[in-house]
Amino acid sequence: MGTLVLLRHGESDWNAKNLFTGWVDVALTDKGTAEARRGGALLVEHDLLPDVLYTSLLRRAITTANLALDAADRHWIPVKRDWRLNERHYGALQGKNKAETKAEFGEDQFMLWRRSYDTPPPQIAVGSEFSQDVDPRYADLDSVPMTECLKDVVERLIPYFETEIAADLRAGRTVLVAAHGNSIRALVKHLDGISDEAIAGVNIPTGIPLRYDLTDDGGVLRPVTVGGEYLDPEAAAAGAAAVAGQGK
Amino acid sequence: MGTLVLLRHGESDWNAKNLFTGWVDVALTDKGTAEARRGGALLVEHDLLPDVLYTSLLRRAITTANLALDAADRHWIPVKRDWRLNERHYGALQGKNKAETKAEFGEDQFMLWRRSYDTPPPQIAVGSEFSQDVDPRYADLDSVPMTECLKDVVERLIPYFETEIAADLRAGRTVLVAAHGNSIRALVKHLDGISDEAIAGVNIPTGIPLRYDLTDDGGVLRPVTVGGEYLDPEAAAAGAAAVAGQGK
Repeated sequence: MGTLVLLRHGESDWNAKNLFTGWVDVALTDKGTAEARRGGALLVEHDLLPDVLYTSLLRRAITTANLALDAADRHWIPVKRDWRLNERHYGALQGKNKAETKAEFGEDQFMLWRRSYDTPPPQIAVGSEFSQDVDPRYADLDSVPMTECLKDVVERLIPYFETEIAADLRAGRTVLVAAHGNSIRALVKHLDGISDEAIAGVNIPTGIPLRYDLTDDGGVLRPVTVGGEYLDPEAAAAGAAAVAGQGK
Repeated sequence: MGTLVLLRHGESDWNAKNLFTGWVDVALTDKGTAEARRGGALLVEHDLLPDVLYTSLLRRAITTANLALDAADRHWIPVKRDWRLNERHYGALQGKNKAETKAEFGEDQFMLWRRSYDTPPPQIAVGSEFSQDVDPRYADLDSVPMTECLKDVVERLIPYFETEIAADLRAGRTVLVAAHGNSIRALVKHLDGISDEAIAGVNIPTGIPLRYDLTDDGGVLRPVTVGGEYLDPEAAAAGAAAVAGQGK
């Protein structure tokens, strides 16, 4: 059975500006590119060299993977990209400042939008400068999301994981998934069997590979160690705390 | 019928040092990264946006494609990598200085190794610091080349082109191939029907997209315009002349 390595992209321009990003396609900051290279160095240090790469369709995850794999001398492995690994669509919040949103709507509503399992933010308007309804990369979708809650991400992503990604894992491969805070939370919820309530307390740091060794339990992939193992646990704890505190 | 866009990687460290490179996996120079981004800007200027990317397994082509597609906002397209798009294996010449090789062996031998169709350089020694016999990216090959002439490149690459790449072209896609001087020469020889002798005079500049619109002529893909069209013809002519003059 293979090994799954989850990697949240390094800091993006909009992470740095404290804006809700979702499906808006922003670039990494200089700090984010350094985090990506450090992620690759951690893979080498831990002798955890990916055989295949999965990415979302968003630049911050793609660039993170490119830089990490280049640093790990694994730039040449096969790549598969899919929109189902995208960040949660943040609806009408895309492009809005997190602190201003909290001040405007109050902490309860803010945390509900950020961390409730099944309450999506209001839909983004068609034709908004931050909507994706005419983005060519989603031209093959029946309908482009206008907002999503974490449950929506689970529903689009887990079937993809169970078919495409799991096939590579069952073939014994080391699979790197370069994705986003909420698409990785959806995977972690599924793998670790976290409840709809408890997932609110799980935060994913940027740029630190999270390793899951897996076992096949009667046809279901289960982690050998619940929660997996961050390749730099100390930095991961600090990073997760920083994510939890966003908007403060 | 789709459009084929051929892109030779930007200047590499070993281009700059005038060394034979072949399958040695060297990085781009700063000039090379600028060439790659300019290649992407040319794609946008000419409204020639790729639907799918093919690359070799070598960093200089992969990085060139990453940078060009990022500049063209097409970083999210599907990617296929294959060793058959690699540069010609330069055998025992890999790592040697071109000017010194010419001085040591004479102009006739030098040009024979560089430009004859069917005379490969001497084989590289097993275990040489510049050989690829234990490189993990070629672990699935029955045997890793120890040297190649252009004819060898044609024989490995054209069947791949005719099946994999041609399928995307027949599906109407714009296909970007990010590759190398000699793998692109092999493709151009095939597409334009250039003789084994005349191909010696064809040189491919770095970083300038070469566009081939194709037509299906009784099951055979043929260029609408023989020789294709460089997106910046003036820079391409200067670049090709510089390649022709290497070793001088």
